[in-house]
Amino acid sequence: MDIPHSNHYLALSGGVGGAKLVLGLSGVLAPDQMTVVANTGDDFEHLGLNICPDIDTVLYTLADWNNKELGWGQAEESWNFLAALKRLGGENWFSLGDRDMATHILRTQLLGAGASLSEVIEQLSAKMNIAHRIVPMTDERVRTQVHCRDQRTLSFQHYFVRDRCQPEVTGFEFSGIDKARPSAGFSAALASPLSAVIICPSNPFVSVAPILEIPGVVAQLQAARVPVVVISNIVGGEAIKGPAAKMMSELGMPQTALGVAQHYVEQYGDLVKGFVLDTADSALEKEVNALGLATIVTKSVMLTLYDKIELAKQTLAFASTLEA
Amino acid sequence: MDIPHSNHYLALSGGVGGAKLVLGLSGVLAPDQMTVVANTGDDFEHLGLNICPDIDTVLYTLADWNNKELGWGQAEESWNFLAALKRLGGENWFSLGDRDMATHILRTQLLGAGASLSEVIEQLSAKMNIAHRIVPMTDERVRTQVHCRDQRTLSFQHYFVRDRCQPEVTGFEFSGIDKARPSAGFSAALASPLSAVIICPSNPFVSVAPILEIPGVVAQLQAARVPVVVISNIVGGEAIKGPAAKMMSELGMPQTALGVAQHYVEQYGDLVKGFVLDTADSALEKEVNALGLATIVTKSVMLTLYDKIELAKQTLAFASTLEA
Repeated sequence: MDIPHSNHYLALSGGVGGAKLVLGLSGVLAPDQMTVVANTGDDFEHLGLNICPDIDTVLYTLADWNNKELGWGQAEESWNFLAALKRLGGENWFSLGDRDMATHILRTQLLGAGASLSEVIEQLSAKMNIAHRIVPMTDERVRTQVHCRDQRTLSFQHYFVRDRCQPEVTGFEFSGIDKARPSAGFSAALASPLSAVIICPSNPFVSVAPILEIPGVVAQLQAARVPVVVISNIVGGEAIKGPAAKMMSELGMPQTALGVAQHYVEQYGDLVKGFVLDTADSALEKEVNALGLATIVTKSVMLTLYDKIELAKQTLAFASTLEA
Repeated sequence: MDIPHSNHYLALSGGVGGAKLVLGLSGVLAPDQMTVVANTGDDFEHLGLNICPDIDTVLYTLADWNNKELGWGQAEESWNFLAALKRLGGENWFSLGDRDMATHILRTQLLGAGASLSEVIEQLSAKMNIAHRIVPMTDERVRTQVHCRDQRTLSFQHYFVRDRCQPEVTGFEFSGIDKARPSAGFSAALASPLSAVIICPSNPFVSVAPILEIPGVVAQLQAARVPVVVISNIVGGEAIKGPAAKMMSELGMPQTALGVAQHYVEQYGDLVKGFVLDTADSALEKEVNALGLATIVTKSVMLTLYDKIELAKQTLAFASTLEA
C-alpha cells in the first residue's frame, strides 16, 4: 500500500482498544500524516490530581510504556503509594501506580501553572519520544456523566471504576460540552484537507460521542466531505474490553456490531461512510450495507503488533476507496 | 523515677534528632502528659504538594514507620514515582518516596478542602496509631528563608536539599512569623500548668527558633515560670545530623555545645534554665554553668531505643530539679 505523503488522517480514540489501533496506524503513517484526538470526557479530579485516563493510555501505548499484563497503566509498575494511602485512610478505589503518579503530578502542576492540556500532552509526548501528534479533543473541561436506572447520575469514573459498571445505564451527558471548542490541534486537523477520519474501536457512547459532539465537529466533517470509517468495537456480540456491550443491552439496542452501525447512523446520519467488521461478524455485513455503509470484513481483534499494523493498513486501504 | 500523673510537658522538636528524643519521651510519659510541638518553618510547596518534613519525621518516628537505614522517610520505601518523574523531566531534587507520597497527597487534599494543619496531623496520627499529641507550631504559613554570603536568599529546602547546605549562611528569616499564632494545641499547652519545656536536640537556628519566635511564645513561657531545658544538638564539636555546626562556624560562633548555650542566652535571655551536655563535652560544663545555666552531663547520642528512653528519663529528672 502506497500512502501519498500529502495524506493526513484524523484518528479518534478512547482508551485501550483505540490506542491499539493508533499504535498500528503510527507504524504505517509518518508523524506528519496523522493527528490523534483523544477523548477527555472521562478525565477527572481525584486526590487533587488531574487524571486523563484515555490520553495516558494512548501516550503509554505509543511510548511502549504501557503495562501489557494489566492492560492499563505503566509497565514495571509498583503500588506502594496506593498501599500507603489505604493505610492512612485515603480514597483508594482508583488504582494509581507509583510510576503513573509522576504523570498525574506533573500534569496537575503544569495545568496549575496555566498550561493547557494540549501543551501538557505535547510536553509529555516529547519526553516519551512519541513522534506522532496526540491532542485532547478539547482544552475545555468536559465531564461524562452516567445516568442510571436507579435515578442516580454518576461521574464516569465513579460508574466505571468505583462501581465497576454495575449500575444499569439509561443515558449519558457530557457536562461542559456546550461551551467546549476543539483543541487547537483538533481544529487544525479539521480545517486541513483530510484523507479520512478513523474512528478507532472505542466505546461509541463514552469514548467517541464526547469527541464528535463538541459543537461544530460533525458539521465541519460533513462540510469537508471527508470519508469517516468506524472500526466496530463489538465483535461476536461482546466488547473486547469495557462495558459497551452491557450498555447497549441496557439501552435496548442489539448487542452486536450491527447495533453499533445502527447507532452511528441514528446519531450522526450519513457521517460515517465505512464500517469495519471482524470476521466473526461476517454474517452481519449485508445488514450493515443496508444501512448505507460500505464494509470490509477483516480480523479486527488486535493481539500482536502485527495485528495492529495489519488492521491499520486494511482500514486505510478501505478508506481510500470511499467517497464522502 | 516517678512522674506525677498531673505533670504535663511541652517538647519542641525539629526533625530527626528531635524526633529521637520525642520517641524516648513517649516511652516515659503517658499520652496526656506531653504535647509535642513540631517546627513548620521548613515546610514547603513542591510539585503542588504541601510537604512538612519535620512533622512527618516526628510522625513516622512515633509510628515506627521511619526508615532507619536512610534516617528520613518511610520504611520499606520504593522510588518508582521519582524515577518516572525524572524520566518525564519533572523536578526531582527532593526525594519523594512512593509511600511517602501518600502522606503528601492526603495532606494536600485535606488542606485544600479547608482543614487546618493541626487537623491533618490529628487525622494522620490517628491512622498511624500514635497516642501522644503532636501539633504544628502554628497553623499559619511560616517559611524559613536562608540569607547567604553571596547575597542570595534561599527557601530552606532549596538551601538544605537542593543546594546540599553548600551556600555560606549569614542569617535566617521566618517569613510570615509576624502574623503567626501558636496552633490551638500549642496554645493550650502554653496556657496549662507545665512541668517543663524540653527543647529537643534540634538545630537552634532553623528548627527551634521558628517555634520560639512565634509572637508571644517566649513571653508566655517566662510569665508561666516554667523550667526550660535544652539538650545540646552539638556533641564533640559536631552536629549529629544536619548543618548546625557548619552554620555556627559561618555565623562566627564557637562550633561547640558551649556555643549553643551562649546562643540561647543571647537570644532568649534567662528563658533556658537547664542544659544537657554529652559526656564528650564534660569539659565545657563549668563554662556553661558560668552562663547561669544548670547542667547535667550524660550520654546524649541516641543510637538505640534504650538510649532514647534513658535520655528522656535523665532530662525529666533534671527538669524536676530546676526552678524557673
